[in-house]
Amino acid sequence: MKKILLALCLAPMFVLASDSDSLFIRQLSEEIMRRGKAYDHLRDLTKKIGHRISGSEAYNKASAWGAKVMKESGADVVELQECMVPNWKRGGKDEAYLLQKDGKSVLRPIQAVALGNSMGSGAKGVTGEVIAFSNFGELEAARDKIKGKIVFFNHAFDPAEVLTFRSYGAVGAYRRSSPGIVAKYGAVGLMIRSLSDATDNFPHTGSTAYNDSFPKIPAMALGLRDADAIWEAFQKGEKMHAKLITHGRFAPDTIAHNVIGELRGTEFPDEIITVGGHLDSWDIGEGAHDDGAGCVQTIEILRSFRALGYQPKRTIRFVLFANEENGLRGATAYADRAKQRGEKHVFALESDAGGFTPRAFGVTAKGEQFQKVRSWLPLLKPYGIDNINPGGGGADIGPLNRAFGTPVAGLSPDSQRYFDYHHAQSDVFEAVNKRELHLGAVTMAALIYLVDKYGL
Amino acid sequence: MKKILLALCLAPMFVLASDSDSLFIRQLSEEIMRRGKAYDHLRDLTKKIGHRISGSEAYNKASAWGAKVMKESGADVVELQECMVPNWKRGGKDEAYLLQKDGKSVLRPIQAVALGNSMGSGAKGVTGEVIAFSNFGELEAARDKIKGKIVFFNHAFDPAEVLTFRSYGAVGAYRRSSPGIVAKYGAVGLMIRSLSDATDNFPHTGSTAYNDSFPKIPAMALGLRDADAIWEAFQKGEKMHAKLITHGRFAPDTIAHNVIGELRGTEFPDEIITVGGHLDSWDIGEGAHDDGAGCVQTIEILRSFRALGYQPKRTIRFVLFANEENGLRGATAYADRAKQRGEKHVFALESDAGGFTPRAFGVTAKGEQFQKVRSWLPLLKPYGIDNINPGGGGADIGPLNRAFGTPVAGLSPDSQRYFDYHHAQSDVFEAVNKRELHLGAVTMAALIYLVDKYGL
Repeated sequence: MKKILLALCLAPMFVLASDSDSLFIRQLSEEIMRRGKAYDHLRDLTKKIGHRISGSEAYNKASAWGAKVMKESGADVVELQECMVPNWKRGGKDEAYLLQKDGKSVLRPIQAVALGNSMGSGAKGVTGEVIAFSNFGELEAARDKIKGKIVFFNHAFDPAEVLTFRSYGAVGAYRRSSPGIVAKYGAVGLMIRSLSDATDNFPHTGSTAYNDSFPKIPAMALGLRDADAIWEAFQKGEKMHAKLITHGRFAPDTIAHNVIGELRGTEFPDEIITVGGHLDSWDIGEGAHDDGAGCVQTIEILRSFRALGYQPKRTIRFVLFANEENGLRGATAYADRAKQRGEKHVFALESDAGGFTPRAFGVTAKGEQFQKVRSWLPLLKPYGIDNINPGGGGADIGPLNRAFGTPVAGLSPDSQRYFDYHHAQSDVFEAVNKRELHLGAVTMAALIYLVDKYGL
Repeated sequence: MKKILLALCLAPMFVLASDSDSLFIRQLSEEIMRRGKAYDHLRDLTKKIGHRISGSEAYNKASAWGAKVMKESGADVVELQECMVPNWKRGGKDEAYLLQKDGKSVLRPIQAVALGNSMGSGAKGVTGEVIAFSNFGELEAARDKIKGKIVFFNHAFDPAEVLTFRSYGAVGAYRRSSPGIVAKYGAVGLMIRSLSDATDNFPHTGSTAYNDSFPKIPAMALGLRDADAIWEAFQKGEKMHAKLITHGRFAPDTIAHNVIGELRGTEFPDEIITVGGHLDSWDIGEGAHDDGAGCVQTIEILRSFRALGYQPKRTIRFVLFANEENGLRGATAYADRAKQRGEKHVFALESDAGGFTPRAFGVTAKGEQFQKVRSWLPLLKPYGIDNINPGGGGADIGPLNRAFGTPVAGLSPDSQRYFDYHHAQSDVFEAVNKRELHLGAVTMAALIYLVDKYGL
C-alpha cells in the first residue's frame, strides 16, 4: 500500500517535471554530441601518456593531466587526494615458447603476457611439460600428476552467454587464484587462457594473487588462438613442453593520487554525488576502453554542465580514481576519508565497462530509490538507455556503498566487444568510437542531472 | 473493444507457447553463438571475392559462392534467379586536387571518390574555382555565380541526431540529386561532403543521378577531414581551384542473379516467408557491413534451422538479392515473378543496416500484425532486442510490401558506427565483430521461427 501511495505521489511530480527535464537533457546531448571534448581528451590521455599502471611515472603524468583538464573544464575546486599504492613492475619482456620434443630447443613462440602482480621466473625462465585442464575439478582429479609441470587452464568464455560480464565472472577465478592452487601441487609455472572471447591472438593480463604458503611461480595468460592450438594438441595426446620467462616484481608501495574535481551544490552542498572512472590501467595497450573512456566521460559531464551554466543543487564530485586494477587503494582512500569527515554520500555513478554504445544503467539501491531511477527511463531512452537494471555500480564506488549504503549505479554499454580489448595490447584509442563514447557521456550527464535535481 | 478482445485471445495463446518458444530460441542462440558459420562465411565473401558491384565478374563469383553455401547449409532447393542489371564501371583511378592560386599546378590531393553512376570527366579532368554551399537554398540564392565553377556541398550529418539513419536521410538528396541541379546552373563539377559522421578521411561513394537536360558533370564525394578543411577555407574567403578526374561510364546492362535457397513448408507450403540481404556492394572496400553481413546472417538462419532439425510449417526463402545499390533490379524481379505466379508472401525480413549488435526490429505491418510481433518482445529481449518499432523493412523487400501488402521488417542493429564504413574503403571484414554479427543472426532466426510458427 505504501508503495502504491508513493507511486501516486511521485507520478504527477514526474509528469510535471518531465518537459523541462527532457529539454535540458536534450541540451546536454547537443552540447556533448556537437561540442564534446571527451574524444579529444581520450586521444591526449592515450597517445601522450599511454598506459599508466599504479606507481608508474605515467600514472603521475596522468593525474597531473587529469587535474589540469578538470580545471579547464570548470571545476570549482580540483584536488589531488594522496594514497599509497602497490608498485608492481613487469620488469622486462615476457616470453613464452613451445619447445621441441627434446624439451629443450624452441619449437615456436606463444603470444603470452605475465599476469599482473605475478613474480618473475628469473632470467633463465622455467621449463616443464604442459598439462592442461579446462577447470579446477579436472586439476583436483589429477593432483598427483602436476609436480614439475606447467599447468595450462583452458577455461573458455561461453560464447552463447549474451552478457559477456557474466562469462568474465564465471571464469575470473582462473586468473585471480590459479597460481596458488597449482603451486600447491608442485607446478613450476602456470598458463591460462586469456579472459576473452576475441577472434584475435592478443593475450590479456589482469590481477592475480599467490598463496603465500607455496612458491610464487610465473603465471601467464595466452592469446586465444595459441590457447586453442595447445588445448587441441593436448586433447590429441601430444606431449608438449613449454618455457616461460617473466620478470615481475613489486617495488615498495608508493604515492599516487585520486583526481577530484568538484562543483559545489547551491541548495544542499553537504549532499555529495560522485561520478567517476579509474585513471590507472594495465601496463600494455593504452587503457582506452579500460578505463580512459570512463575518465573522459566523467570530465565531459563537468564540462557540459559548465558550458550550459548548470548550477547543481547538490555537490557533485568528478573523480578519477587511482589503482582500481591492482589494489583499489584510491577508492578505499576516498571512502575512508568520507567516513572520517562524516560526509553524506547520496549517489555514486561509475563508467568502467568501456566506451561503447550505451544500453542500460545497473543500479544498486533500495526498492523505492530504484523505482525512482527507473521512473526516469523515458527521459533516457532517446539516448540509448533501454533498461534500468537492478544491481550494478563499479569497483571504485563499491566502498561508498558498503560504508554508507549509498545508492550506486554503473553505465552498461553494449558488452559484446569489451573483452576483445580488456587488459590487452589492443585496448587503444583507435578501438573507441567517438559517437559511442560521447553518447555514453550524455546518458551519464542526464542521470547525474536527475539525481541532483530530485534527490534519491 | 475489438483490440481488447484480440489481446485477451492472444495473451493466453502466447503464454502457453512461450516456454517451448523460449527454449527453442535458446537452442538457436546456442547453435549460432557456439557453432555459427556466418563470420567464416563473411571472411570468405570479403577476402576471397571482395567488393562486388552489379555487372562485375566479382558479383558473378559471389552469386556462385552464395548458391554453393546455401546448398552446404541445407537448402531443399537453391536457385539462381536471373535479372538484368545496370553495369556501371568506375573505369580508372579517381583523382581530386586543390590547385595553387594560379589555378593550374597542384597544391595537394584531396581524398575523394566518384559517386556511383557518375560519368567520367575525360582524361584531362575538369578544373574550376570552388564555390561552396551548405544546402540547396544557398545554391539557389547564388545561382548566377555557378557557371564554370566546381560546386562543393558541405551538408553535414547532425552529430546530435542519435539515430544515424535519420541523419543519412536528411542529407541523402545532396548525393542523389545534386549533379543535375548544379549542372543546370553551369557548374563543371560537383564535390559533396561524404554522407558520414566518421572521424577519419575515407570518402564514401553511393548512387547519384543526373538530369538528362543538362551536362553529366563529374561528381565526387570527399573525405570528411578534407571537406572540413575546404569548407573552413571557403568560409574565410579563400579563393580555391580544384581539379577532378573521374572515369565513370555505363557498359550495356548485363545478367546477374538473385540467390534463393528454400526450405519447403510442411503445413502451409504456399505461404512464403522471405529473409534476406543484398549480395552486391559498391566497388570499394569489401562490402562487409553493407551488406555481406546481411547475406551471411541470412544463410546462418538456414544453417541453424537445419542443424536443429527444424521443419518449418511455411516455406522459407533465404534470398541474397542482386543490385540493391544501383537499381534494385533483383528485388524487383523477385516481386514481379511472385506476382506472375500468384505467390502468397506472408512476411519478409531484411538485414541491411550492418553487422552490429542487435537492438530492435522495425516492422511495417497492420495494427494487429504489428501488435502480434510486439507481443514476442520478451522472447527476443535476452538476445539484445529491446524494442519493436513501427516502420522499417529493407530496400529489397519493399517491392513485396508494395505488391502484396506483405508485412516487412528490418533488423535494427546499433547504428552509431554504420556510416563510418558505409560505401567506403573502410567497410572491410575487420570492421565486423563476430559476436555482434552472430547475435544479429540469432535475433533474426528467432523472429523467423515465431512468424513461421504462429503466422501473422
